[in-house]
Amino acid sequence: PKGDRLIKLNTNENPYPPAPGVAEALKHMDIDRFRKYPDPAASDLVHALAEYYGVGDDQVFVGVGSDDVIAMSFLTFFNSDKPVLFPDVSYSFYKVWADLFAIPYETPALDEQFCIRPEDYYRENGGVIFPNPNAPTGRALSLAEIEDLLQHNADCVVIIDEAYVDFGAESAISLIEKYENLLVVQTSSKSRSLAGMRIGYAFGSETLISTLEAVKNSYNSYTMASLALAVGEASIRDEAYFRETCRKVAATRDRAADELRALGFEVTPSLANFLFATHPKKAAPEIFSALREKGIFIRY
Amino acid sequence: PKGDRLIKLNTNENPYPPAPGVAEALKHMDIDRFRKYPDPAASDLVHALAEYYGVGDDQVFVGVGSDDVIAMSFLTFFNSDKPVLFPDVSYSFYKVWADLFAIPYETPALDEQFCIRPEDYYRENGGVIFPNPNAPTGRALSLAEIEDLLQHNADCVVIIDEAYVDFGAESAISLIEKYENLLVVQTSSKSRSLAGMRIGYAFGSETLISTLEAVKNSYNSYTMASLALAVGEASIRDEAYFRETCRKVAATRDRAADELRALGFEVTPSLANFLFATHPKKAAPEIFSALREKGIFIRY
Repeated sequence: PKGDRLIKLNTNENPYPPAPGVAEALKHMDIDRFRKYPDPAASDLVHALAEYYGVGDDQVFVGVGSDDVIAMSFLTFFNSDKPVLFPDVSYSFYKVWADLFAIPYETPALDEQFCIRPEDYYRENGGVIFPNPNAPTGRALSLAEIEDLLQHNADCVVIIDEAYVDFGAESAISLIEKYENLLVVQTSSKSRSLAGMRIGYAFGSETLISTLEAVKNSYNSYTMASLALAVGEASIRDEAYFRETCRKVAATRDRAADELRALGFEVTPSLANFLFATHPKKAAPEIFSALREKGIFIRY
Repeated sequence: PKGDRLIKLNTNENPYPPAPGVAEALKHMDIDRFRKYPDPAASDLVHALAEYYGVGDDQVFVGVGSDDVIAMSFLTFFNSDKPVLFPDVSYSFYKVWADLFAIPYETPALDEQFCIRPEDYYRENGGVIFPNPNAPTGRALSLAEIEDLLQHNADCVVIIDEAYVDFGAESAISLIEKYENLLVVQTSSKSRSLAGMRIGYAFGSETLISTLEAVKNSYNSYTMASLALAVGEASIRDEAYFRETCRKVAATRDRAADELRALGFEVTPSLANFLFATHPKKAAPEIFSALREKGIFIRY
């Protein structure tokens, strides 16, 4: 929406600007580079990510935001006649991608505390995907629960969508060496304040990453603009700023949750940068409309 | 390839820098905008393109380079069991996309002058695509030939890939009002010196464009980074620079063709920014290797 007097909470953007190195990268960008194609392998960004997360360069894939990375992963890895599994309350695009590529799916229900039950994912399937923490609930599985789920799904690809992991949950990147079928997807859009630059990435075994690369090179060899590569790398290189802004967002989240509870809301414990709340006396559509009239955008 | 002492002719990049407005757009970019998602409708860039080409905003689609636009068009429009038709000597990615999406295809041969024969495309088919001018031949169909081809293909989508049109051929954008099934694809990569920024676009009827938008919004709602949108718009707004650099590239092309002919090469008349040449005494692989040793990259 256009306009300055808005408080837009419905796309979970970061209130802090990108790392100072991003402005520097822009300032030092050689415009003459724009006339040439970017590095199709995105080697410098891939290397920065590999170094930062302690994995090999050949265990990293990059794309135009995590939506691009996950859409391509659906196209690449979910080809079975068996249903792909993801939670019934989760990121709305999993259904959209499954429909786009004509992939069957089933959506196990969350439990009464809005948590994923790992045992629902032990049945035969054509792949598994879920966000950790989940959106819009903010609830996360522990690394032990994820490992249990992986051990029950050795024959399909398991994708963990960690768009919100930096605000408090445990990343599963440490498990990619052990589980060749695990793909962990992250993004610079939320915790790194770069939604406008479209930078997403995935970590996995060399087998998964090289397969994803092969499909990407059959779709669009040059997805990442040279400027996005430089900006993404500058952001990854500034760990102190990253840690500090994530800490501040988490502190604001916890304070806001306390204030909402004091107002009578029930608020699910969140490990993400958003809150999942309900009020015993006010219906969500009413709250949504009243806030919207004041220029405050939320989801219900 | 890395290194400064290279002459890289194999990806048809522009030797001139992007329009001066591009540097200005970068300098005035508000970094704080990066933390927010870009406009998913890319309204400002779409409007600039619509104004420049004299079409409606709802007749313009934008994507991450013309490869992204064409890949998405294959996924959207080529769904029949009948074969898609494209020339046997043409852009190598048409086959790759057809294979990726399991679309059957047939490839009519060019004639002895390396020209497309429109009558080869009059048979029943599931869609038609060709570059105009064609790559790597540089030869173009006239607007009258294209209109003839359209009249014989009223029941399928015809895509004209105009990546190289600005160097001398006639654009078919003027025909989109009359032919609802015509999609014209262009790019900022070649004639606008912006290969590194990944900006492509398509022009067509409101029906084709809204269908393409629907598929794009089922794949990745935010494909174009806010910076790519600003840079693309700045480039479109500078017509004088654009015309002047295209004129200079065409003049260099014609002079180089004359010089090659003087050296004994046979050179096909080109309306693109590349030349298609053969030598009666030297085999192409030999020429390729000898040039490569000198740090000059061509294709054979």
